[in-house]
Amino acid sequence: MLFAQEDKLVLIGDSITDCGRKRPYGEGRNDAYGTGYVSAINALLQSTYPELKLRLINTGISGNTVRDLQDRWETDVLDLKPDWVSIMIGINDVWRQFDQPQITESHVYLEEYRDTLEALIQVTKPQVKGIILMTPFYIEPNPEDAMRQAMDQYGQVIKEAAAKHGTVLIDVQAALEPLLAHRYPAALAWDRVHPDLTGHMAIARAFLEGVGFSWNGAAR
Amino acid sequence: MLFAQEDKLVLIGDSITDCGRKRPYGEGRNDAYGTGYVSAINALLQSTYPELKLRLINTGISGNTVRDLQDRWETDVLDLKPDWVSIMIGINDVWRQFDQPQITESHVYLEEYRDTLEALIQVTKPQVKGIILMTPFYIEPNPEDAMRQAMDQYGQVIKEAAAKHGTVLIDVQAALEPLLAHRYPAALAWDRVHPDLTGHMAIARAFLEGVGFSWNGAAR
Amino acid sequence: MLFAQEDKLVLIGDSITDCGRKRPYGEGRNDAYGTGYVSAINALLQSTYPELKLRLINTGISGNTVRDLQDRWETDVLDLKPDWVSIMIGINDVWRQFDQPQITESHVYLEEYRDTLEALIQVTKPQVKGIILMTPFYIEPNPEDAMRQAMDQYGQVIKEAAAKHGTVLIDVQAALEPLLAHRYPAALAWDRVHPDLTGHMAIARAFLEGVGFSWNGAAR
Amino acid sequence: MLFAQEDKLVLIGDSITDCGRKRPYGEGRNDAYGTGYVSAINALLQSTYPELKLRLINTGISGNTVRDLQDRWETDVLDLKPDWVSIMIGINDVWRQFDQPQITESHVYLEEYRDTLEALIQVTKPQVKGIILMTPFYIEPNPEDAMRQAMDQYGQVIKEAAAKHGTVLIDVQAALEPLLAHRYPAALAWDRVHPDLTGHMAIARAFLEGVGFSWNGAAR
Amino acid sequence: MLFAQEDKLVLIGDSITDCGRKRPYGEGRNDAYGTGYVSAINALLQSTYPELKLRLINTGISGNTVRDLQDRWETDVLDLKPDWVSIMIGINDVWRQFDQPQITESHVYLEEYRDTLEALIQVTKPQVKGIILMTPFYIEPNPEDAMRQAMDQYGQVIKEAAAKHGTVLIDVQAALEPLLAHRYPAALAWDRVHPDLTGHMAIARAFLEGVGFSWNGAAR
Amino acid sequence: MLFAQEDKLVLIGDSITDCGRKRPYGEGRNDAYGTGYVSAINALLQSTYPELKLRLINTGISGNTVRDLQDRWETDVLDLKPDWVSIMIGINDVWRQFDQPQITESHVYLEEYRDTLEALIQVTKPQVKGIILMTPFYIEPNPEDAMRQAMDQYGQVIKEAAAKHGTVLIDVQAALEPLLAHRYPAALAWDRVHPDLTGHMAIARAFLEGVGFSWNGAAR
Amino acid sequence: MLFAQEDKLVLIGDSITDCGRKRPYGEGRNDAYGTGYVSAINALLQSTYPELKLRLINTGISGNTVRDLQDRWETDVLDLKPDWVSIMIGINDVWRQFDQPQITESHVYLEEYRDTLEALIQVTKPQVKGIILMTPFYIEPNPEDAMRQAMDQYGQVIKEAAAKHGTVLIDVQAALEPLLAHRYPAALAWDRVHPDLTGHMAIARAFLEGVGFSWNGAAR
Amino acid sequence: MLFAQEDKLVLIGDSITDCGRKRPYGEGRNDAYGTGYVSAINALLQSTYPELKLRLINTGISGNTVRDLQDRWETDVLDLKPDWVSIMIGINDVWRQFDQPQITESHVYLEEYRDTLEALIQVTKPQVKGIILMTPFYIEPNPEDAMRQAMDQYGQVIKEAAAKHGTVLIDVQAALEPLLAHRYPAALAWDRVHPDLTGHMAIARAFLEGVGFSWNGAAR
Repeated sequence: MLFAQEDKLVLIGDSITDCGRKRPYGEGRNDAYGTGYVSAINALLQSTYPELKLRLINTGISGNTVRDLQDRWETDVLDLKPDWVSIMIGINDVWRQFDQPQITESHVYLEEYRDTLEALIQVTKPQVKGIILMTPFYIEPNPEDAMRQAMDQYGQVIKEAAAKHGTVLIDVQAALEPLLAHRYPAALAWDRVHPDLTGHMAIARAFLEGVGFSWNGAAR
Repeated sequence: MLFAQEDKLVLIGDSITDCGRKRPYGEGRNDAYGTGYVSAINALLQSTYPELKLRLINTGISGNTVRDLQDRWETDVLDLKPDWVSIMIGINDVWRQFDQPQITESHVYLEEYRDTLEALIQVTKPQVKGIILMTPFYIEPNPEDAMRQAMDQYGQVIKEAAAKHGTVLIDVQAALEPLLAHRYPAALAWDRVHPDLTGHMAIARAFLEGVGFSWNGAAR
Repeated sequence: MLFAQEDKLVLIGDSITDCGRKRPYGEGRNDAYGTGYVSAINALLQSTYPELKLRLINTGISGNTVRDLQDRWETDVLDLKPDWVSIMIGINDVWRQFDQPQITESHVYLEEYRDTLEALIQVTKPQVKGIILMTPFYIEPNPEDAMRQAMDQYGQVIKEAAAKHGTVLIDVQAALEPLLAHRYPAALAWDRVHPDLTGHMAIARAFLEGVGFSWNGAAR
Repeated sequence: MLFAQEDKLVLIGDSITDCGRKRPYGEGRNDAYGTGYVSAINALLQSTYPELKLRLINTGISGNTVRDLQDRWETDVLDLKPDWVSIMIGINDVWRQFDQPQITESHVYLEEYRDTLEALIQVTKPQVKGIILMTPFYIEPNPEDAMRQAMDQYGQVIKEAAAKHGTVLIDVQAALEPLLAHRYPAALAWDRVHPDLTGHMAIARAFLEGVGFSWNGAAR
Repeated sequence: MLFAQEDKLVLIGDSITDCGRKRPYGEGRNDAYGTGYVSAINALLQSTYPELKLRLINTGISGNTVRDLQDRWETDVLDLKPDWVSIMIGINDVWRQFDQPQITESHVYLEEYRDTLEALIQVTKPQVKGIILMTPFYIEPNPEDAMRQAMDQYGQVIKEAAAKHGTVLIDVQAALEPLLAHRYPAALAWDRVHPDLTGHMAIARAFLEGVGFSWNGAAR
Repeated sequence: MLFAQEDKLVLIGDSITDCGRKRPYGEGRNDAYGTGYVSAINALLQSTYPELKLRLINTGISGNTVRDLQDRWETDVLDLKPDWVSIMIGINDVWRQFDQPQITESHVYLEEYRDTLEALIQVTKPQVKGIILMTPFYIEPNPEDAMRQAMDQYGQVIKEAAAKHGTVLIDVQAALEPLLAHRYPAALAWDRVHPDLTGHMAIARAFLEGVGFSWNGAAR
Repeated sequence: MLFAQEDKLVLIGDSITDCGRKRPYGEGRNDAYGTGYVSAINALLQSTYPELKLRLINTGISGNTVRDLQDRWETDVLDLKPDWVSIMIGINDVWRQFDQPQITESHVYLEEYRDTLEALIQVTKPQVKGIILMTPFYIEPNPEDAMRQAMDQYGQVIKEAAAKHGTVLIDVQAALEPLLAHRYPAALAWDRVHPDLTGHMAIARAFLEGVGFSWNGAAR
Repeated sequence: MLFAQEDKLVLIGDSITDCGRKRPYGEGRNDAYGTGYVSAINALLQSTYPELKLRLINTGISGNTVRDLQDRWETDVLDLKPDWVSIMIGINDVWRQFDQPQITESHVYLEEYRDTLEALIQVTKPQVKGIILMTPFYIEPNPEDAMRQAMDQYGQVIKEAAAKHGTVLIDVQAALEPLLAHRYPAALAWDRVHPDLTGHMAIARAFLEGVGFSWNGAAR
């Protein structure tokens, strides 16, 4: 697995990452990690590799776009001196274009998304062991859907950034496809964005697979 | 894996099972399954085997002893016509003897525990595909500890019942041992009973291993 | 317009009708009619035809299916001795099949839907001046979507019943189409079911058009 | 209709405008526009002319007089760069003279009302496509009533300002008269100031008529 | 003064009497008497005639009509074995006809009002030292106002009943006239029904004058 | 009566004056004056002399001593430009010496009380028509009681100041004596300090008598 | 000490005993015993004689008189099969005569008090090892005070009953005297009835002295 | 006893000391001292030695380590000018190492603990009559337990500091041993840290014994 003894991992993002985590930092006892994929990842890592004594910190904030991440990157990522940084951002960048089309100042279009992400990666890369880039997603199986198409474009930006910088890539949208083959979107998320724990577990499984996690703790 | 297409599984128990589940039955959307091992099991099963369309129902109630389970066995287990029944009970049966020793009417001693459990298994077995017995546990690594010793006795009753009736057995106490080798009890549960999600995930992993779950959904 | 001096109109349905109306009956001062299409219809009728002194009563209840309507038809419709009855039901009958597919006892399939509706119409028709049937709807523009297809089938039942019994028919699904031509579903309703007031106003306008409402109160 | 493709309209005023809108600006999803005439106007405009993609922003604040509007005109009107500005103010300017006559510092007398309004119009006019002036009102049919007489004087100021500056004029008091011909004031508003949705809808209808709204979206 | 040593006085009515009194009976410490005229009467009587040790019990209930009084007359008046009974009822009997004209089942028309009151007086009179009848009122100075005219009719019923049965009569409407000569109705009560403490004190003063109260406790 | 047309009266003090008044200033609608003697005085003055249009402002604050009054004298008295100022202070100055004898920094001893009061009177007198000094009180009939004796000393300071400066004097302690002749202290105030409305009414009556109030509004 | 290994002691009374204890029975973890003398007694007994494993149950209820005790004696005392019963009652029996003198049905006069107590003792004595009678008290040092004199009479009834039946007697009033020699009543209890923990501790100390408690656990 | 007439004692610490005390300083009426050992000590001292008029101030804050004490030593100890200072700190310094081992910045290791304590004692000693050092504790009877062993080391630091500076020493851990001989830890504290009142009373008794308290107030 990628993570070594006592590594520190900061996971930043929007409401999918946040999920009610503790403030100012999402770590500690009980529900400090929130109730989403970060919490599931932490529980699976800690229960499977207790000897590694890993440290995860959730700094997701609901409603954030990449523009918001940039504003708080210093305090919520770099100052924490992480070994690894995981980023899942872009859903709100796209969603606001569709659910409040007239409020254009809330939209983050593709170019700003790409440039801001690039800037964040460049400042971070020299200071960490590695970056984990997670694609944004939309729980909509119809590939012709306008918002799904937009989300796929933003996901493509993530894929290209991962390739360019050699980071770990978690294709969250792809990880959710098998579920959508058997469940209607409303069974995962009434708003096609905020999944129930089954959806979060699918994200967590994709993440863990991407970092070389072994279900039985072997092959470490 | 043990569970077949569209199987229905009822999981009954105390606060470890309950974890804030929905009333009257713990199933449905969002946090209907609570925030403990039942929720983790459901999320892992549904995200890994979406095609099986399994149905899990959480009927745990905080503070219950086996005496309480007997009182509500008809409505909370049999009436639901499950294919499988999972039982984790005994922690409060023991705990009350230690945290309120003078209130003896709240204690369920070993013989009553064994006899009641036997009665529940006998009435249930003919009506289901199988029963899953989970040992009660105590997050105390010291084997000389009085309450840990008592809990082990109650766990032994579960093991003997599983052997006698040929049920699935989940040794929860054993599943928590690796964690206790690397973490102090207080890091799992301030009261050594109610673990954080890492502890619940260890329970869920033991359960899933016991029913033949495969991390990648293979070998079904 | 269909409604005459001092006519009494009962509007029954699910959460789209309910919208937080007063209990036990949704009429009176302030927000007694809820915040949805019933409230908009009442406000438009009363402000445009104040001289008619119409009386509207909202008896919608969130989560209801046609099965629930049948259970309370006596007290919530017939006992109120209405001149007109408006019915919009079916969304939950369909939705539960998609958002909790395993909980089959919560599903109301097409045949039960049709038969129950027929029974309600038959008992009601002799006692009122007229019935207004509103199709259920789903804010999903893709005609291939599975839930949209199911909803269209239930809507077809409504259309056939309206034709058979000669009732007023409000095609709510059709009324929402123009909006969906210019707005993404998420801009009307995050869950594609509960619209904002713009969506409710579109429903209200379709209803009023169906009953011969005139914007300037003329042609009465 | 007056409003063109993607026009932005700011509506400012007192509690009649506010009605529980979102802070700091009343626009967006759900009940962001409050529950009064602004919300009704928005819903009727958006559902009838979805292709125009108009943007409405509610900046009313309960209890405001024209003196308060002046204090926040920069941030709550001009900074938003509206195409159109709608103003309904004056009720509290008058009401305080009648419900707390001794607290004279809370009164805004006619001259201050006229001068402040004039100043606001002059600074705004060059920056927008047009201004919509709405008269304040009092739900009291008796023309001899002292507060009604005062309100009519303030309404007269609005009418004169509209004539002088060639703005759109909405005579709200006149729009409520037909209702008062058939309903007692207490049926519209217990305090003769805050109407129920029927009263707000009458205001909305007057507004829409004033801006050339067509019920069927024609004549655009 | 009418009241003698240790007399017990029950005051029944609607919200004007209730004013948040204690349940089931409004007497005892602190704000048990509510915050209206009953409380003021009690405080003035007890502070001026402490040696009389009078006992007042408030049994008003908000929203009540004379129909409601009849339903609870046994428990809330007769069972308390009062020496004196004070009745102020009729405001809601009239108001509902004006604020929800369509909900006719909530109206109590003049004949029912007169007959019910007569029945209550007849059953009560033989069991008490005396009855105090208070007219209902409406804080509206315009004698042409429709609701004020109706209220005056109901007040007339009270006056006739007082004359017929020789009870004490408190003309509350008349007692409020001097205030209305100097204050606008909104300064006494936004809804012209529920006055502030100044209005309640005017009622209390009329009541006390009617029973021979002396400001300095003299002439007892 | 002392007060003339449109006079403004500020009443300052501790919890007996405060009684839950509105912040920052206790005047306006409903319970803005609190629920104590200030509210009773206002209601009796306004209902008896409506034509005077007096303005009362309650600026009492619970727990205050004369030391606290001095700290806020500028903003809570002088800035309001009153015609009359009423002061009732001293209860907490004494009480703290008896209920928390060890916390000596909370005590205000006699000399500081006298000197501070003198300073307040001197700065205020030239700016107002008159000052009304009310003695602090203790609802304890036993003249030997230590706290009653202390309170009497503080009351004596008030009497001497009133005599020296020729202000109106309200002997509140004396006004309560007749009540204590017939009621046990606990029937007026469980803590012998905060009376029920009967006690507050006795204070109000003493105040009104002191300013020449006439129960029937005569002799003005 | 009187209490032997595993003895069970029920303590019944009014608010002094209750102090927010758990319902239906005041025993168990945390603040189950309330925050008064019962809690102090339990903590001192359990921390000093842990080996005795005593069981205390608090069944006090605020506001109770001896009449209320009689109503619930079966369920709240006898059904619990105590070895010892402690009774402190009478404060409310007296207090109501002083704080609500007119509400005579709430008074329990001396004879009823004596007779009811006698009946309770007679039914209880044969079923227990012993009864502990505690005098009611009033935190008023003045022996001439009317309520103190009444309380002393009720206390005298307790003393006579203790002598007659040979029970343990705790003279609570006497136990508080030393405190009153150095502290003003208000420093113990603003209402002279509900003491702070210092007062409760004085009661607990008197109780423990009465049952032969030894501070260092010796002499058992 | 150590404490003389009117001595002032400040007790500082963590949640064991805090127990919900009043802010900013824990002294005064009712539950100002919290619900733990400080409250018990105050009640026992004040009820046994009322003539000493001692003054206790609780400045404990939940979650504090010695590092936190140092930050607020000026305002929460020295500024209060105490005669005596009692310190119980160290539990969180140790606990964080065990319940959140990865969050190392929350740990206070032995050396920092010793040095900080030494600094606090040195600055304080010249300004007070005496210091009372209380060992931190852990309600775990197993001497091999890792956290108990750590706590004993921190306790040893306290003992050495007490010996070095000649302060009073309260060995809290030792005081709890007799309880643990008869009660299981869970009966004192579910988390083995926050005891019920029995545990707090054992601490209070140890403290009082250490300062020469006599149960019957003798030997002063």
